[in-house]
Amino acid sequence: MIVTVTLNAAVDVTYRLDRLDRHGSNRVREVAQRAGGKGVNVSRVLGALGHETVVTGLAGGAAGQALRADLAAAGLREELVPVAGETRRTVAVVEEADGDTTILLEPGPAVSPAEWSAFLTRYERLLAGAAAVVLSGSLPVGLPPDAYGVLVGLARAQRVPAVLDADGEALRGGLPAGPALVKPNAAELAAVTGAADPRAGAGWLRAAGAGSVVASLGPDGLLACTPQGSWRARPPERVAGNPTGAGDAAVAALTVGLVAGTPWPDRLADAVALSAATVLAPLAGSYDADAYRSMRQRVRVEPLGADGPCTAEQA
Amino acid sequence: MIVTVTLNAAVDVTYRLDRLDRHGSNRVREVAQRAGGKGVNVSRVLGALGHETVVTGLAGGAAGQALRADLAAAGLREELVPVAGETRRTVAVVEEADGDTTILLEPGPAVSPAEWSAFLTRYERLLAGAAAVVLSGSLPVGLPPDAYGVLVGLARAQRVPAVLDADGEALRGGLPAGPALVKPNAAELAAVTGAADPRAGAGWLRAAGAGSVVASLGPDGLLACTPQGSWRARPPERVAGNPTGAGDAAVAALTVGLVAGTPWPDRLADAVALSAATVLAPLAGSYDADAYRSMRQRVRVEPLGADGPCTAEQA
Repeated sequence: MIVTVTLNAAVDVTYRLDRLDRHGSNRVREVAQRAGGKGVNVSRVLGALGHETVVTGLAGGAAGQALRADLAAAGLREELVPVAGETRRTVAVVEEADGDTTILLEPGPAVSPAEWSAFLTRYERLLAGAAAVVLSGSLPVGLPPDAYGVLVGLARAQRVPAVLDADGEALRGGLPAGPALVKPNAAELAAVTGAADPRAGAGWLRAAGAGSVVASLGPDGLLACTPQGSWRARPPERVAGNPTGAGDAAVAALTVGLVAGTPWPDRLADAVALSAATVLAPLAGSYDADAYRSMRQRVRVEPLGADGPCTAEQA
Repeated sequence: MIVTVTLNAAVDVTYRLDRLDRHGSNRVREVAQRAGGKGVNVSRVLGALGHETVVTGLAGGAAGQALRADLAAAGLREELVPVAGETRRTVAVVEEADGDTTILLEPGPAVSPAEWSAFLTRYERLLAGAAAVVLSGSLPVGLPPDAYGVLVGLARAQRVPAVLDADGEALRGGLPAGPALVKPNAAELAAVTGAADPRAGAGWLRAAGAGSVVASLGPDGLLACTPQGSWRARPPERVAGNPTGAGDAAVAALTVGLVAGTPWPDRLADAVALSAATVLAPLAGSYDADAYRSMRQRVRVEPLGADGPCTAEQA
């Protein structure tokens, strides 16, 4: 079983209307809502791939109830720990005239020390049956900055490999505990390491404690820096669509590969193809199965030669 | 007891942020939410004035639960009838730099015939103990266009006077049943009657079935056309602030006056002062008590002479 942790889970709301009139009164034509947050998206993809998975994290208030109900409707097992605050909503206002989207992100609830402690108890219990744990997304207010370090450490103590997909302080706080894999995107990597070259940034993250680093480079695919070698994996063609959740699909594929011990080139090809197939599907956490199969055969994976090892010294 | 009916109740959400970046990603600094809808605001004001009141209408989903919880926290009795759909949210995005506000209005749930029938049963029970009933706001999808006519008729059958605050089709559908009072604003009045002069529009509404008509003219106060005569009531000064709920405060005062049989000039002075005091308070359904007392003494109420009777013929 793969456990995904979403400490700052969300209800993703989509409003569709003709055109957003800033400073005006806008009638929304259609409202859709769905459980969201990066770890939730990872579990959706894992479930669709046929893997056993459980969603944990924190949830509270009316939005927390809506989140639970949506996971139940999707057939995803959840072990969310209740908090007193209200789970955040993200609102995407989509203008149907041209598809332009305005995003509003609620800050999310503040978490008390007692709630964090209750989460840790649940997390340790879930680790007992876990093949891997995925730690995704931002930290809510009230958690210690090294919260991910604590979670990685507890996983390692039970010999469960941890995959960390976070940025900024939250990512930095998780590195010393030694996550098996971290998956920043290019912008997050540059912001955390100060390195313009993603190979140098990846080397920096490994020096800081990450076992392997896979950086997502948007439409250019993935860069992997691992103890077994370094690779670039590129999609066979550029795809247009909704990039939300593409990184989460890559995390799902990489975690499956980690658990199965798949050779790196195959893991990376899976991750690139699944990520591109997610861009082609309208909702985060869904993917186009035909596109996945077709692209899987055509992803180009190249080992990085002497000109491209991942070392911190390149920074 | 005064019963307020809000068939399309809402959870009013306020997002505060620096500046709304259209087509960008916006982090909301602060989220507030509160039970909303015009009838709910009327009950809030009635409660603050010390009158017994009960909120009824339709509520469903996570937003419906949040609405109920907020009414309970405010000490307002509610007899909302459950529906399967999700109660709508209204989102006000306030830019703190300059106070400019963008409003997003969800459409609200569709109501089934069985739900409407369950509401009518509850409504008839509540009418048994009611001194007046206030019918406020838009009709959700699924209700008959003469829904307000049905509710006015049921109230009259139990000798309970009905106050109707609606616009367009919903207002038109309520008139033939003979509401004791309707309270459009100037724009609603012009849209429904086609009359540019509010006196002519008010005359039209009376001819169509309304007992009395009080039109709210924004900062210019109120125009009343009644079987006892016609009046203009003007606030002593213009007030700046949040006009949301000002009309609902006027409805609350007018309904109290209706139940008590207060002479029209006093009712109108109460309504104008309470309405202006609501503009000075930050939230709909609240008012500035000192401003109310101060302005109450200074509202100017004038009978309309020979140049201004309210007749449909002026249209």
